[in-house]
Amino acid sequence: MRYPVETIRKFGSQIFEKAGLSPEDAAVSMDCLLMADLRGMRTHGTTHMKDYCRRVSIGTTAVGVEPEIVETAPSTLTVDAKHTIGMATGLKVMRRCIENAKKTGTCVAAVHNGCHYGLGAYFPMKAAEEGMIGFSFANTPPLVAPFGSAEPLLGTNPISIVIPAGRYPDLVLDMATSVVAKGKISLALKEGKTIPEGWALDKDGAPTTDPAAANVGALVPFGQHKGYALCLIVSLLSFALSGADMDIDIPRFFEETEKITNVGYFMGAIDISKFCPVDVFKSRVDRMFDVIKNSRPAVGFSKVLIPGELEVNMTQKSLEEGIDLSEATLKDFRAMSETYGVEYVF
Amino acid sequence: MRYPVETIRKFGSQIFEKAGLSPEDAAVSMDCLLMADLRGMRTHGTTHMKDYCRRVSIGTTAVGVEPEIVETAPSTLTVDAKHTIGMATGLKVMRRCIENAKKTGTCVAAVHNGCHYGLGAYFPMKAAEEGMIGFSFANTPPLVAPFGSAEPLLGTNPISIVIPAGRYPDLVLDMATSVVAKGKISLALKEGKTIPEGWALDKDGAPTTDPAAANVGALVPFGQHKGYALCLIVSLLSFALSGADMDIDIPRFFEETEKITNVGYFMGAIDISKFCPVDVFKSRVDRMFDVIKNSRPAVGFSKVLIPGELEVNMTQKSLEEGIDLSEATLKDFRAMSETYGVEYVF
Repeated sequence: MRYPVETIRKFGSQIFEKAGLSPEDAAVSMDCLLMADLRGMRTHGTTHMKDYCRRVSIGTTAVGVEPEIVETAPSTLTVDAKHTIGMATGLKVMRRCIENAKKTGTCVAAVHNGCHYGLGAYFPMKAAEEGMIGFSFANTPPLVAPFGSAEPLLGTNPISIVIPAGRYPDLVLDMATSVVAKGKISLALKEGKTIPEGWALDKDGAPTTDPAAANVGALVPFGQHKGYALCLIVSLLSFALSGADMDIDIPRFFEETEKITNVGYFMGAIDISKFCPVDVFKSRVDRMFDVIKNSRPAVGFSKVLIPGELEVNMTQKSLEEGIDLSEATLKDFRAMSETYGVEYVF
Repeated sequence: MRYPVETIRKFGSQIFEKAGLSPEDAAVSMDCLLMADLRGMRTHGTTHMKDYCRRVSIGTTAVGVEPEIVETAPSTLTVDAKHTIGMATGLKVMRRCIENAKKTGTCVAAVHNGCHYGLGAYFPMKAAEEGMIGFSFANTPPLVAPFGSAEPLLGTNPISIVIPAGRYPDLVLDMATSVVAKGKISLALKEGKTIPEGWALDKDGAPTTDPAAANVGALVPFGQHKGYALCLIVSLLSFALSGADMDIDIPRFFEETEKITNVGYFMGAIDISKFCPVDVFKSRVDRMFDVIKNSRPAVGFSKVLIPGELEVNMTQKSLEEGIDLSEATLKDFRAMSETYGVEYVF
């Protein structure tokens, strides 16, 4: 069943407030989860509201404290997130990056003691709204084998970059550095299907199409040794600058809700106006997108896409037709409505 | 035949000076080309000395002028490279990024009117020597089809990132965003061999193993749609901020030496000491490398590598045993020795 975005937003914000978040943090957190749902990234959306609330209720996500943002130089920030809710904290950090970048041209932040921050693209999308190029990286629990290794030592360490366009939607890259997310292995296992070659390794590091073998093995980085390097760099930027945990020490956020997390984020913004007028930049981006969109599709393709284009189409559809909530999510919503005394409206 | 690095360095620097470069620019340019040779990236090494010299002799690479570096904000630079030799100019820009980053924590530069700058990792390696994380991107002539397109519209747009380590060699990523370089297609064509699936498309955008079909088709980005996004982002960072040419307008630097180039670079440095003591950062990096190096190799692998590790081994071997110069390069060297009146010492 599909439900209007604003209905879900109002319900979810009330739940987050009753759970203990400030009205502002509740609204931002809900906005970030909804943005994921709208864009079709359901794994980062409202399906996890109950897990965020559970963490708040047992204290593994903190409320009533603010992240400590320290300007160590005009263009660098260090942040102790103090285990506060990731979506709201991520935005606070990005807003400060944007503010500083307006003065110095660019600003980057290294964050430790972070919780899962939801949709990584949410933060650089805010930078793009301000005429900036934004990016955000984070490290995550170990699921991915370094190229040539049999052991899952790296996270699926996502890369999120947004570059503003003019006539076109902004370029939004939001990707795991693994070929696929772990969820796709679990789904194949549940449905009794095989998985394509190139997704995962068994426990000896041999390629496998058996999801059960993959489940006790490891995911592989996208693009072999090249993606491995990027996955590792995301990890180093996220933990080695900030002092967050290494990937192998990060618990699974939604499954091990009783464990405190010390995830690292590395994010920043680059003020385009320090290089050229923003509309000139956007017209250059549009020119490239014209060239790409007007090119001949390859055999087997009907059109050529700009990164993030599919998600813009999905967002428009969801805004018009509502967001499709699963039975499981509705069940969670009903339970939360009782726990927190918020009217169930679905 | 192998020749000592210092013999080649002395010879090449003299050639570059006689061609018209300043002693400093000649030395830096030669150092960058030698670094490529030492690391086994012969395609970016001394094999192209004659092409750089030819460009200088006919004026498509400028001498006697300096790149114009403008600090548009404390942490941003715009640079008109004025078609000066890329290796020396790249280093001048990176040095200024490092200098500014010491004050503000980070600095990025957008460069236009650039020439081919050789080994992209050369510049961020200098940042790493100063306790910084360095990166450099550039756009290049169109050889790569966007994911889903049949047309070569994007460059092989390289990504170069260096992260300093402690007990280990620094992490050095220096990669094209295509699966392979065009040179591998040419080589297969010359040798009458087929190419592996996944390297290239024919002119209709269908995957091909025929190097002749690939030669009139396009290379593909590494990691499919994910690598495509990164290839495109490298392009946008390189040309849309700086006003350099789009990839489709860039001539082939070593083949079309009569054409001026307006390549874009985007480079920068992040001062680690603004986040934590540099030795603390390096020990964290080492800890991750320990975990990776001590992991079980996958089936078919004898060890697990850190990005850039192979190249460090090659460098050590070349420093000890000399650099292997091809007959073609030696022939070029002999011709240049006559043209520029420099003693031929090979």
